[in-house]
Amino acid sequence: MEKSKEVLIETKMKNKLPEFIPGYGQVKPYNGPFATQPTTVKQGVNMTSSKPGDKKLLSSVREALEKVEMKDGMMISFHHHLRNGDHILNMVMDEIAEMGINDISICASSLTNAHEPLIHHIENGVVTGLHTSGLRGAIGKAQAERNILGKPVVFRTHGGRARAIEAGEIKIDVAFIAAPACDEMGNMNGAEGKSAFGAMGYPLVDAQFAEKVVAITDNLQPFPLHRVSIPMNLIDYVVTVDSIGDPDLIATGATRVTKNPTDLLIAKNAAQALIASGYIKDDFAFQAGSGGASLAVCKFLREYMEENEITGNFAAGGVTGFLVDLLEDGLFKALLDTQTFDAKAADSIRRNPNHIEISASMYANPHNKSCSAHQLDVMVLSATEIDESFNINSLTGSTGRIMGALGGAPDTAAGAKLTLVVAPTMRKRIPIVVEKVTNIVTPGDTVDILVTERGISVNPNRTDIQDKLDATGIETMSIRDLRKHVENFTGKPEQIEYSDDVVGVIEYRDGTVMDVIYKTM
Amino acid sequence: MEKSKEVLIETKMKNKLPEFIPGYGQVKPYNGPFATQPTTVKQGVNMTSSKPGDKKLLSSVREALEKVEMKDGMMISFHHHLRNGDHILNMVMDEIAEMGINDISICASSLTNAHEPLIHHIENGVVTGLHTSGLRGAIGKAQAERNILGKPVVFRTHGGRARAIEAGEIKIDVAFIAAPACDEMGNMNGAEGKSAFGAMGYPLVDAQFAEKVVAITDNLQPFPLHRVSIPMNLIDYVVTVDSIGDPDLIATGATRVTKNPTDLLIAKNAAQALIASGYIKDDFAFQAGSGGASLAVCKFLREYMEENEITGNFAAGGVTGFLVDLLEDGLFKALLDTQTFDAKAADSIRRNPNHIEISASMYANPHNKSCSAHQLDVMVLSATEIDESFNINSLTGSTGRIMGALGGAPDTAAGAKLTLVVAPTMRKRIPIVVEKVTNIVTPGDTVDILVTERGISVNPNRTDIQDKLDATGIETMSIRDLRKHVENFTGKPEQIEYSDDVVGVIEYRDGTVMDVIYKTM
Repeated sequence: MEKSKEVLIETKMKNKLPEFIPGYGQVKPYNGPFATQPTTVKQGVNMTSSKPGDKKLLSSVREALEKVEMKDGMMISFHHHLRNGDHILNMVMDEIAEMGINDISICASSLTNAHEPLIHHIENGVVTGLHTSGLRGAIGKAQAERNILGKPVVFRTHGGRARAIEAGEIKIDVAFIAAPACDEMGNMNGAEGKSAFGAMGYPLVDAQFAEKVVAITDNLQPFPLHRVSIPMNLIDYVVTVDSIGDPDLIATGATRVTKNPTDLLIAKNAAQALIASGYIKDDFAFQAGSGGASLAVCKFLREYMEENEITGNFAAGGVTGFLVDLLEDGLFKALLDTQTFDAKAADSIRRNPNHIEISASMYANPHNKSCSAHQLDVMVLSATEIDESFNINSLTGSTGRIMGALGGAPDTAAGAKLTLVVAPTMRKRIPIVVEKVTNIVTPGDTVDILVTERGISVNPNRTDIQDKLDATGIETMSIRDLRKHVENFTGKPEQIEYSDDVVGVIEYRDGTVMDVIYKTM
Repeated sequence: MEKSKEVLIETKMKNKLPEFIPGYGQVKPYNGPFATQPTTVKQGVNMTSSKPGDKKLLSSVREALEKVEMKDGMMISFHHHLRNGDHILNMVMDEIAEMGINDISICASSLTNAHEPLIHHIENGVVTGLHTSGLRGAIGKAQAERNILGKPVVFRTHGGRARAIEAGEIKIDVAFIAAPACDEMGNMNGAEGKSAFGAMGYPLVDAQFAEKVVAITDNLQPFPLHRVSIPMNLIDYVVTVDSIGDPDLIATGATRVTKNPTDLLIAKNAAQALIASGYIKDDFAFQAGSGGASLAVCKFLREYMEENEITGNFAAGGVTGFLVDLLEDGLFKALLDTQTFDAKAADSIRRNPNHIEISASMYANPHNKSCSAHQLDVMVLSATEIDESFNINSLTGSTGRIMGALGGAPDTAAGAKLTLVVAPTMRKRIPIVVEKVTNIVTPGDTVDILVTERGISVNPNRTDIQDKLDATGIETMSIRDLRKHVENFTGKPEQIEYSDDVVGVIEYRDGTVMDVIYKTM
């Protein structure tokens, strides 16, 4: 295979990217968060037809694969709302392998540890393409170290995936949708049934733009289903199975605020910085990751909001039970939810009309007419690395291993008026604040404040925020000084050695390339 | 202009159609309700982009027209959920005329008497194209007699309109949507506010496939609107006006069962025929027009259902307060609603989760993956004429004047297992049951029973139904005999004389041509 490093282009982010990547194509480098405009039309799938008496109900995944004429070379899509409890992807892929079909590309909204059996399908040539937001565990390790796919995984943000599908950059032949409630014609929702997971943000897009759409359900309801998130006019077949997912693993567990004293210190400092910045006021719009430190920020913000009788407008996510409490206690007026993170939140979306299901396109696609990410005042992110240019890495470890995800971080960082990163300065003596991140996921020009347990740094291009923090007496330091300070404890991290093989392409939400991941030596 | 009658093709319906119609194009003749398959992809509109801080809120229709760069030759769309109370179409068209823009084509879901001012815009060349389900009053008369457009009006069914828009046969440059509740980013619903009309079935399609979408509201709500029928990611601009419609004219009035003894007799006979046919049983799916006789059929059916403890599955429509009563009294489990006909039904859709809003595509588009019309057991239709082949005319009068609509009649007649027509045999000595209808709107091969005050006729291709009616002792007669019987009272209607100008094209729901309307002499 030809090498990709031969011609390198220097980007706005000062990283060097190959001009052309085998197995990916021409590279259009990132050029600023809103610099790249769409030049295409939305993709048009083939029109179909229906007749009275048509049946869609099938009794096995195998039958569905035969009906949709699954064949070598197809692109199929999945969504990860069932997270670690998902049965759908493995169920479908095992059957595809069984049928002797090869060269399948998978476009997943993300991949979790539940999907590790995929590694065999990759090694056996059943799967030869991966499009995802995240990759972890054995697959991430094997791809980073051995390029098992033989070409790069394409990583996209949640908004970028919706955009790429709408733009036809990803042409889905068959979308498989896990449907916690579904009728025999394919009307479905994610909020009802034993495997309820809540919002159906990702497949809301897939169902519109895939050639064929298969709903897989363990809860067949009488026609017509009354609560419809995805309507039957977009669905080809309905398959009933015993279980679409393991309910115990669907939820990431009760969302608990961290008890780790470092995380609590960071969260407290972060809340103070947010308050000082002036954005925490009536009708502010808020989003935070679901990590322990982010949730702890919510806890401290909540205290401030209650003391000062501040009511926010909406909170968005990735919605946890913690956000549900804020809604129910009147601290926010609405939740915008593209993916529900636990059972409490899934219950909320079913019964509370102020907990609103939105598509991934409405959440974060930069190339439509509005997205909620662009309506945010405050976004709180975490990071596995952050560098002197405020670039965030949330995908790869300092060893070069692929072990995280893009998620909605680049989307919301671009959209929010204030993007604050909470991170410890080091984990197990590995520095988090570094000179240069292993890979850029969220560009520093969309990140405003870093809060660590050893100091707070403000992006120099946000003098307005620096002034506000100065005015309230919050001490800050340059991120360079912070980095150097951290290096006193950790030492300078060793440089990883890479080969020339590109094993991952990190797309920015607009379809440009932010960075590439090389195979480790 | 070249004449259209020069080359005629004989159709399956035994009417002769021109091969080519100036101002319309090549004619693809109707070939049976499910014979014509789609051969195209769904149209793709241009992708756009949004940035944080983008504003959509405009203070006048004029400003919106400037923002969307309205210009000569554009196709714009409207919907008629506000019916006779609609202010939007006239408001927009007056402003377009004021700006000196010409040659506009209007794609309306239907036109009502409220839209008569349009006649001036047509006469002045502002409007040169009309796509609609119905046309009445002065415009219908002027087009039939004088061809004021200078080319045919294209008539489509509700399902056919959705299909044509999705297929790109109609390319909407700008869609104008009346929004009874809307936030500043364009999230909207039709169920809340002083001008609430209920379901937004038609613009649910327009918003997806129009290049630009303008929401016009008299009820601006805080962002984010909690009940979202059409999401902001599809909306370009939001215009606030004092009133989008006259609430007193939005509803067609309290839906009352007819007191006309002839209509009551027909309805009673129709209910008996339906019961005898065997389709009125647990879980049947039902739709009926909103005319007095159709409602009266519901009344008699209701009595039968209560006596026999029958619970239907869903009723669909065009939903009236009468259907709401059936839902609330437990006689049906759900209502599927693409257009809400009165204030009581609008109130129901707002508060009752079993009253379900559906798009016009999910309602009746034959070229998607399912529509509710194809799930019907029983459809009750009315007619202005019905002929010996059971063809129904609901658009033109026996004088050739355009005075009605296609609505969902051809869609539901094709979809329902049993289509029953209720009609008096004559109105003011003009026969309704005729040898040949003035124009075919709903083809006879999709119509099963005619019930009049003077007799019941069963389509000869439904021997199964004939047998059932015979078995229960219901007297029937051939429709030819019925027609002759009626002629004894009315005499043979005079033949209308037509010119060669085609002033209307009646498309079947699949995009073929069912019939054409010629200019009267």
